[in-house]
Amino acid sequence: MSIVCELCDASAGDILVSTDQLRVILVDDANYPGFCRVIWNAHVKEMTDLSDADRNVFMQAVWKVEAAIRAVMQPHKMNVASLGNMVPHLHWHLIPRYTDDAHFPNPIWAAVRSDAPDQSALDARRNLLPQLRQTIMSNFAS
Amino acid sequence: MSIVCELCDASAGDILVSTDQLRVILVDDANYPGFCRVIWNAHVKEMTDLSDADRNVFMQAVWKVEAAIRAVMQPHKMNVASLGNMVPHLHWHLIPRYTDDAHFPNPIWAAVRSDAPDQSALDARRNLLPQLRQTIMSNFAS
Repeated sequence: MSIVCELCDASAGDILVSTDQLRVILVDDANYPGFCRVIWNAHVKEMTDLSDADRNVFMQAVWKVEAAIRAVMQPHKMNVASLGNMVPHLHWHLIPRYTDDAHFPNPIWAAVRSDAPDQSALDARRNLLPQLRQTIMSNFAS
Repeated sequence: MSIVCELCDASAGDILVSTDQLRVILVDDANYPGFCRVIWNAHVKEMTDLSDADRNVFMQAVWKVEAAIRAVMQPHKMNVASLGNMVPHLHWHLIPRYTDDAHFPNPIWAAVRSDAPDQSALDARRNLLPQLRQTIMSNFAS
């Protein structure tokens, strides 16, 4: 029996876009509405394991998602990261950050601030998610 | 008097490679020998603010540095991130990660592990830095 990688299951998560090579997921994170992941379908560990052509396809997808998040969510700053220490299967985190969010100005993996954002600010951002879905799908259709 | 951005000072840090558009810095981090940054010289906030051509130049540099770090430092996993919450001037962090490092498997911005690596493991990695410098410079020369 082989070791199962959770990102090898291409049907998991809230999939906005799916191609032969990659998929875009809307992450369900209570503190970070608009957080998306771009996941390479094949089980590859590092960006420099990909061919130049595949790496370019992957990064073009990342920038399409970033553009959509910026257009709709209007973040203060974008955070973009490929870590994969726990799941060594290539995936990019795209996180819209706000000066009042739960960790700002620290990375979202640091300790939560004591003065976390109030629910109304989060709700306002969450209300943008239908528009974000539509914009990401449109960016891949063009 | 304008607000000073520390990354607009192109002479700061341990510069391994410098081009008209970007520079590569060896970061002085006691826990992470081999940690490098690729910094865009112009004060630009987000990757999607760059032209396609500039973004491609930037990412090609990132992958040259990743390739050198992997070849010399032999990490368990690469971490690659563009955050910039404190300094909104484009820069990529490239961090070689090891299962015994100070934060593994968490991101380096999380709380330090109680069972941090011993000094000899760090020293062995630190001894690779001259070779890393040479390899990064070679990757940009070719």
